[in-house]
Amino acid sequence: MKVDGTPYRTIWLGADGTTVQAIDQTLLPHRFVVRDFRTMEDAEVAIRTMIVRGAPLIGAAAAYGMALAMAADPSDAMLARAYTVLLESRPTAVNLRWALDDLRALLAPLPPAQRREAAYRRAAEICDEDAEICRRIGENGLGLIRKLKPRDSSGRINALTHCNAGWLATVDWGTALAPIYQAHDAGIPIHVWVDETRPRNQGASLTAWELSKHGVPHTVIADNAGGHLMQHDQVDFVITGTDRTTRGGDVCNKIGTYLKALAAHDNGVPFYVGLPYPTIDWTIADGVRDIPIEERSARELSHMTGRTETGELATVQILPEGSAGANPAFDVTPARLVTALITERGVCDASEAGLLSLYPERSHAA
Amino acid sequence: MKVDGTPYRTIWLGADGTTVQAIDQTLLPHRFVVRDFRTMEDAEVAIRTMIVRGAPLIGAAAAYGMALAMAADPSDAMLARAYTVLLESRPTAVNLRWALDDLRALLAPLPPAQRREAAYRRAAEICDEDAEICRRIGENGLGLIRKLKPRDSSGRINALTHCNAGWLATVDWGTALAPIYQAHDAGIPIHVWVDETRPRNQGASLTAWELSKHGVPHTVIADNAGGHLMQHDQVDFVITGTDRTTRGGDVCNKIGTYLKALAAHDNGVPFYVGLPYPTIDWTIADGVRDIPIEERSARELSHMTGRTETGELATVQILPEGSAGANPAFDVTPARLVTALITERGVCDASEAGLLSLYPERSHAA
Repeated sequence: MKVDGTPYRTIWLGADGTTVQAIDQTLLPHRFVVRDFRTMEDAEVAIRTMIVRGAPLIGAAAAYGMALAMAADPSDAMLARAYTVLLESRPTAVNLRWALDDLRALLAPLPPAQRREAAYRRAAEICDEDAEICRRIGENGLGLIRKLKPRDSSGRINALTHCNAGWLATVDWGTALAPIYQAHDAGIPIHVWVDETRPRNQGASLTAWELSKHGVPHTVIADNAGGHLMQHDQVDFVITGTDRTTRGGDVCNKIGTYLKALAAHDNGVPFYVGLPYPTIDWTIADGVRDIPIEERSARELSHMTGRTETGELATVQILPEGSAGANPAFDVTPARLVTALITERGVCDASEAGLLSLYPERSHAA
Repeated sequence: MKVDGTPYRTIWLGADGTTVQAIDQTLLPHRFVVRDFRTMEDAEVAIRTMIVRGAPLIGAAAAYGMALAMAADPSDAMLARAYTVLLESRPTAVNLRWALDDLRALLAPLPPAQRREAAYRRAAEICDEDAEICRRIGENGLGLIRKLKPRDSSGRINALTHCNAGWLATVDWGTALAPIYQAHDAGIPIHVWVDETRPRNQGASLTAWELSKHGVPHTVIADNAGGHLMQHDQVDFVITGTDRTTRGGDVCNKIGTYLKALAAHDNGVPFYVGLPYPTIDWTIADGVRDIPIEERSARELSHMTGRTETGELATVQILPEGSAGANPAFDVTPARLVTALITERGVCDASEAGLLSLYPERSHAA
């Protein structure tokens, strides 16, 4: 999507045909810096330190990490080492393993002299495929947005989103935000309420930044405010991404998503979830019971980074000494609260029957 | 309640019998500083700059402001001036006007020579009455807590609270936290999940501080986390305060309260509200429709104050340039989501019949 008028992806091949470039997401929204990855190790550090984040983007960065490794040394030993090093950069990311397995299976049978070119080509394909999946989610979601009538008299459609499931989390377009970008680009007057998304503030720091840079009208709100806005007809639909979707349609997403789904349900506001097929976990039926929830450091809650009046970045502690914090990172929204799932194949009910209608090849596995 | 073992109120008469002292709440949780009010103007500044805050405490501070005015000059002219100046310090606070009307009605008929003593006596009474009302709310809420069985195997009772309705908001005890202090002091193993309460962070900065100083086990969480905890039996009851309660039992409280009430309802967790009688607005029936909601500055959302590693207080900006914020300060929780109201007179259903059972003298006004 655009940054002040210039189209960007989150990761791309540099003009020299070897160096990989990516937006440094640890400095957003305060500074826009593009990083060069010249070695496999650069890619590994970028994943580990969250210079790049978001499951699809991590997969793409890992694929380019393999390509950088092959550019330096296309040997079997390097192939094995790059696989191991990159895999350990973020141990729990599903897309990371998927991309690395894909590259290794492609490269291992090839003569070393052909590996470099094959790796770069496949990494570029993975990026293009991700962008295309997200574009289709956007197209399918746009169909839902076109059917909405504004609840208030503003004439604009008001969306509400939580966390960052925008183009910064993918290669381009995003998942939850793809329909919003398509609606905006199609001339539909759309405005987005952006949940701050404590404690990591991805809404305030990433979603607000990318909407702002592409020119989509938006307003940041505290995570507490969405229910009140829905009570007063200020929200026409809610849309979020998902980290994992059960075969029954339960949605595991950033902590606080469940509260917004409850408010949407209480006020008759549609609650949509945008997802690419790899986030569907066909092995799990009851998400609330069976999805383990990552507990992250309480420091995310107790400290906050921002910029001072003089423009420097500074971190301040906001909790009293002697008060502990707890930081579950995700929650599960039961399928009964989800109006529809939007995937690259279409729109369906949040249910096993709904998902199987889009992915019939999964029926025999039921 | 106690601060590191020493009993405190939020405001009290100094040892010299004239100076009024109060805890400076603008510096919490980072610094514990007691301010001296030597003049009526000192009290006015303290109310205006939120050195003292919370409706009952503002009323008490205004009463002492009148006493300080009479100590300096007990004339009719000063009485009129003090009334006007203090009333304008926080124009929308109900308790402020109530306390000033009370003092003026008491003092105006008296000969000037008697006003100083009468004003100090009445200000002390207002403080004692507020503490006693809160103590009774605590006693009545304790009865409800004694009936709870822990949902998890920890053996402790887990409360969840939002914002600050503790002793810092009143003269002593608090409203929502009074039952928790009483349970703790009675030896019931109680632990409190404290919602951070964005954007002003009263949970993290005030509730966590006062629980910590009194020795009540607690854990600060993001406002997003409560629903997840309830889904997993980690919350035995929710309790909040209220700024305004309709005759039908709708509860207007800090933004985000409604979301916690929805989650409590969805998980069968009792949702209690502690309130002193002055917060009941007998003139309003439908809270969602008829209670105007204050929209506060977006700066509360875009900037955050904390302490740096070297211990200084610093303010940082956390929103991107070019992104607006919206900041509705309160929301309304419909009575259907409230399990019970706890007042100084007892416990009742959140309904007109429930409230009239405790306040039968209001029946004729129906």
